[in-house]
Amino acid sequence: MKAKVIPNGTITSPRGFLAGATQAGLKSKGGLDLGILYSGVPCLAAGLFTSNRIKAAPVLLCQQHIAKGRGQAIVVNAGFANACTGEQGMSDAAEMASLAAKRLGVSAEDVFVASTGVIGKGLPLERISSGIEKIALSRQGGHELAEAITTTDTFAKERAVSLELDGKEMVIGGIAKGAGMIHPNLATLLCFLSIDALVDIHFLKKALREAVDISFNMITIDGDTSPNDTVLILASGLAGNGKIEDGSAEARAFQDALDGVCIYLAKSIARDGEGATKLIEVAVEGALSADDARVAARTVAGSPLVKAAVHGSDPNWGRIIAALGRSGAEIDGSRLDLFLNNLCLMKGGSPHPFDEDEVRQAMKGEEVPIRVCLNLGNAKAIAWGCDLAEEYVTINSEYRT
Amino acid sequence: MKAKVIPNGTITSPRGFLAGATQAGLKSKGGLDLGILYSGVPCLAAGLFTSNRIKAAPVLLCQQHIAKGRGQAIVVNAGFANACTGEQGMSDAAEMASLAAKRLGVSAEDVFVASTGVIGKGLPLERISSGIEKIALSRQGGHELAEAITTTDTFAKERAVSLELDGKEMVIGGIAKGAGMIHPNLATLLCFLSIDALVDIHFLKKALREAVDISFNMITIDGDTSPNDTVLILASGLAGNGKIEDGSAEARAFQDALDGVCIYLAKSIARDGEGATKLIEVAVEGALSADDARVAARTVAGSPLVKAAVHGSDPNWGRIIAALGRSGAEIDGSRLDLFLNNLCLMKGGSPHPFDEDEVRQAMKGEEVPIRVCLNLGNAKAIAWGCDLAEEYVTINSEYRT
Repeated sequence: MKAKVIPNGTITSPRGFLAGATQAGLKSKGGLDLGILYSGVPCLAAGLFTSNRIKAAPVLLCQQHIAKGRGQAIVVNAGFANACTGEQGMSDAAEMASLAAKRLGVSAEDVFVASTGVIGKGLPLERISSGIEKIALSRQGGHELAEAITTTDTFAKERAVSLELDGKEMVIGGIAKGAGMIHPNLATLLCFLSIDALVDIHFLKKALREAVDISFNMITIDGDTSPNDTVLILASGLAGNGKIEDGSAEARAFQDALDGVCIYLAKSIARDGEGATKLIEVAVEGALSADDARVAARTVAGSPLVKAAVHGSDPNWGRIIAALGRSGAEIDGSRLDLFLNNLCLMKGGSPHPFDEDEVRQAMKGEEVPIRVCLNLGNAKAIAWGCDLAEEYVTINSEYRT
Repeated sequence: MKAKVIPNGTITSPRGFLAGATQAGLKSKGGLDLGILYSGVPCLAAGLFTSNRIKAAPVLLCQQHIAKGRGQAIVVNAGFANACTGEQGMSDAAEMASLAAKRLGVSAEDVFVASTGVIGKGLPLERISSGIEKIALSRQGGHELAEAITTTDTFAKERAVSLELDGKEMVIGGIAKGAGMIHPNLATLLCFLSIDALVDIHFLKKALREAVDISFNMITIDGDTSPNDTVLILASGLAGNGKIEDGSAEARAFQDALDGVCIYLAKSIARDGEGATKLIEVAVEGALSADDARVAARTVAGSPLVKAAVHGSDPNWGRIIAALGRSGAEIDGSRLDLFLNNLCLMKGGSPHPFDEDEVRQAMKGEEVPIRVCLNLGNAKAIAWGCDLAEEYVTINSEYRT
């Protein structure tokens, strides 16, 4: 019942899904920038959206369309976020859904729209319109779609797994993009998921929330939450399984597999943070409550000083403790144990002798695990982030130029 | 009744205060690193300390000593923060107070201790002990003390003003240090203030809280709150005035003058943020509540993406709106007006045409004012921050090496 990773898997790996992308001239650096995900059959649909009070036009449109729990396609562009664009932006997002709907022969209400890129510039609708006409959909098109949604990402984020339940194989696929304006609370700019399992809609919504809470909501790159954050899942129901209901063994196995896909994509986003060279994994154990563990882990993962120290492979562990202390979590300074790359640096709140060269060397790897034991209770959480490099500043002081 | 700036004024400008500093070998880069502020007469004393749950040993000691509302001296070192140093750290802080007390001929309980520098390394007490013996106190010594408390600061922060009330001149002096691990909540690493006015102790505490709330608590450099944050004020009462009581016209004039000194020092800290090249001033107007205005202003001032855009003189105003939206303040996207260097970029929630070259040129100055009108109510607040430069990362990935 354990899920298996599908080599080269992507969002079109589950049954029923086609995708494609084109170069519509929306990204200043060129490349694929407009794409469509399409299901041959109507799907159940669930979504989670940014908690930012300023929501981009496509997010507001998706929130309307998701209300009925169904959908059949997603049209998405990079280069322009269609955020802070006023009423024109709302009308442009609706037009984008209509154009895709017409091309696919479905109702505009069954099309979700997503955009990512520069905030505050109006969508070039003509380019999008002619681009949509050019998109060729295919069963391998998920790779193109994953590429098309990237902006400052250095690689496309894709994953698919299969699991067998009651003799039926079902597949979960997903793609995501990240890189900047990434902070837990819905912490991904864009993530699209597809499944072919037949599932109960209430279970689907709950499973998505649970998976996102321990994956995308546990990563941070720069503390800025985007107005465009969107996670959408479409379920084609073509796997031929008996409907998965909440509380069953199948539901648990499905949840584990979905969690795995989301955590993989979330870690990929953290690893590919703007300018980043390392993935930071912060595990907080022994917290009084799950909320405490989560906020403590996220605060450490998001601390600019911790991130800069990791960048320089500097075991400046005082910064980790300082970040914990300001996190708001219940902390007893005299009980803290701290491990960096599994080497103990602090024990019972006092410095623990360590070989600085050994820790420095360990910190030079691509992943830097930080583990903190609060020794107050049993709750734990894991958060992911990345180091802070000079390159982050370079990218973001020249992003629009 | 308006306060006048004293040219070359510092913390020893008010009557009764002496200071001095020495090079005790505590900073790896050399320079003054240990100092004392001393009043010839016992002073009223008030203080505010870090909200970080992890408090440095000297902060815990100060919190004990401040309880009685009196004090006569401050001994302070840079290079070592004496934070996360366990019981040894507490005993070292107490010993530092005792050594200074012995040298000054006062009770150890009347000495406040402050430390700043690397977290997690024990204080080199021998160097501090012999250093304290060498410190020569003088009426001009405030300048040396201001220099001694700096770490990655590029200049010392000092200010003094005089104001005349009922024919008596009274003086307010202050010094501060900042540079990194700076975030509203008490947002300064160290700030010491001295006054010679005779004041009521309850008014003094209230006045300090009010001044800090609109100054040090409104700056941010990197979102990290230090375990060592300390603001202390000593009042010698030597100005010869009638005691200032809360609610009087004199109290109001004194408060204004104290606010001015604190705002000046706070802005100096923001301007001198690690790697910073510009001061960012964020004014939020028309908020529903003062809390909303404060959190909105601070969130914009602290956004890494806003800071990086300002660094590149890039009028990427969407990031300002995105930060506002995630701040938690009540926002109506359709009512927002936004001004950068007094040029309107957004009006009523929609992009407002502007001359990009003109804005870019204006953003190249040393101060970049951002003004946001929420148009929901009457509350307002101002926060200060700095741009995010590659140099910030360089400094902080190599801080201990």
